[in-house]
Amino acid sequence: MKVIVTGAGGFVGRHLVNMLLKRGDEVVGMDTMAGGIPEGARAIAGDFCDPALQDEALEGGFDALVHLATVPGGAAEADPAASRRVNIDAMYDLLEKAAKVADCPRIIYASSIAVLGHPLPTEGVDDQTPLSPELIYGGHKAMMEIAVAMMSNRKAIDGVTIRLPGILARPKGPSGMKSAFMSDLFHALKAGEKFTCPTMPEATIWAQSVNRCAQNFVHAITCDSSKLPPTRAVTLPAQRMSMGDLAAEIARQCGASVDLVSWEPDAALEAAFGAYPPLSAQAAENAGFADDGTIANLVQSALETL
Amino acid sequence: MKVIVTGAGGFVGRHLVNMLLKRGDEVVGMDTMAGGIPEGARAIAGDFCDPALQDEALEGGFDALVHLATVPGGAAEADPAASRRVNIDAMYDLLEKAAKVADCPRIIYASSIAVLGHPLPTEGVDDQTPLSPELIYGGHKAMMEIAVAMMSNRKAIDGVTIRLPGILARPKGPSGMKSAFMSDLFHALKAGEKFTCPTMPEATIWAQSVNRCAQNFVHAITCDSSKLPPTRAVTLPAQRMSMGDLAAEIARQCGASVDLVSWEPDAALEAAFGAYPPLSAQAAENAGFADDGTIANLVQSALETL
Repeated sequence: MKVIVTGAGGFVGRHLVNMLLKRGDEVVGMDTMAGGIPEGARAIAGDFCDPALQDEALEGGFDALVHLATVPGGAAEADPAASRRVNIDAMYDLLEKAAKVADCPRIIYASSIAVLGHPLPTEGVDDQTPLSPELIYGGHKAMMEIAVAMMSNRKAIDGVTIRLPGILARPKGPSGMKSAFMSDLFHALKAGEKFTCPTMPEATIWAQSVNRCAQNFVHAITCDSSKLPPTRAVTLPAQRMSMGDLAAEIARQCGASVDLVSWEPDAALEAAFGAYPPLSAQAAENAGFADDGTIANLVQSALETL
Repeated sequence: MKVIVTGAGGFVGRHLVNMLLKRGDEVVGMDTMAGGIPEGARAIAGDFCDPALQDEALEGGFDALVHLATVPGGAAEADPAASRRVNIDAMYDLLEKAAKVADCPRIIYASSIAVLGHPLPTEGVDDQTPLSPELIYGGHKAMMEIAVAMMSNRKAIDGVTIRLPGILARPKGPSGMKSAFMSDLFHALKAGEKFTCPTMPEATIWAQSVNRCAQNFVHAITCDSSKLPPTRAVTLPAQRMSMGDLAAEIARQCGASVDLVSWEPDAALEAAFGAYPPLSAQAAENAGFADDGTIANLVQSALETL
């Protein structure tokens, strides 16, 4: 199978490309810099908005395209014009070109729970939760969810939109993401270092291990799209857990003391990233997507890729 | 009150502008040609995508902006690039500029039931029906519904999206709209002429008189946006009726014989425009929007503006 992956040098992209290469797929990886794209993939590096670069990636056709490249949340807030250019305009161009070079190709679009609001609706999220984004990132992601649905209804593409929860554990170091504390907790406890968590232990998050997330993308490549809702979009299942329970499980598996963690809540951060409501992801489960099953599984999987 | 109306020379636009002028509003009307914009409004004519034209309309600020200008359904299918340029890109530009010249201004966006699918979901439409457009027009309208919601959630604008059903009765003559048969029925029976309807008498449509529609826009200018759903979008209430019942009522009010109408169903046209499912427009009603009440009222109102 020939699979094009945009954002192939990113956190999720690298794991996905490696998984695809391992199973024998031919992978074309696009990213800003060639360096992050795993060896074994054909690397196409440069500005995602450049029409020539998109043409180069699509040349010769493909079986599936996984679109991960994005201007992420914080960067989109800081530069809405860049988000509009990359997250809407360039993606729309890519979809139109992809529909021309292949016959109703499978396109997997990485969207975000930010399309549902920020913070998320306190009463909980399910498959009836309407699109009501507040972040620039969530707004642009939601607009392109509609484009994917519309082009799929027209049979120009065979689209699958999956909305990602928090993905654990991101590499160490300053990512600029406000939600980085969830990953930093792993790095600290594995190293037996003290960690100050900017939430209460009772703060609730949704997460998936990066391996589980990559497996969901692999599933999306061949899943039966007739099992998707008419929007073609599903919110991925995720482990909903408290930061306290997560810390205890990481400590247990690392043989570290949970007392290394102190709790100094930052009200604004906790409201945005530590108050995730109950989640029902029935539509995604019906279409064969899955979470890690238990906190223990999630932590074990995340520690393996640390 | 200073109200900017785009598409001010169109069918709904002209009725709305006249209604606003009558109640003493200052109206700035934008349209491709100055000729269609009612006298009394300040006419700004030209290409809606032209940044200079948008700047001219917004200069000096405003109290509310009603956005009716659009590449309509058939034209959007024929030229998706034009629809993308006008219905997405230029509207997004306008929203961003409007948010800069005024403080969280009321923006009323004319969307369409095409955002819900084409044909509409057979099981019926209510406020939980997801956005799953198939027409280019419906797709682009739905994408910009999201932009209006996102900018409203950010308090950059105070948006109100209303989705229009069929509006009766459009002026006589070739409009190029496949749904023109609904209006042509009025013109024929009023003139006592024979009419061949391309549906069965049992075909069901949703409609509003143009006066009722314009009143809904006027209501949207000052309605309490906190009563809207989190999407800021409502499907307007409409009379759901059979073409046979509509023909009988028009004939009665015109003193014509309903036998002037013969029925020669066109299967494709009837599937698209003559099989409208049950409609619940509770969210719109909660926010104070209304339909004509009865078929008799709708017909009387439509005949008055013929």
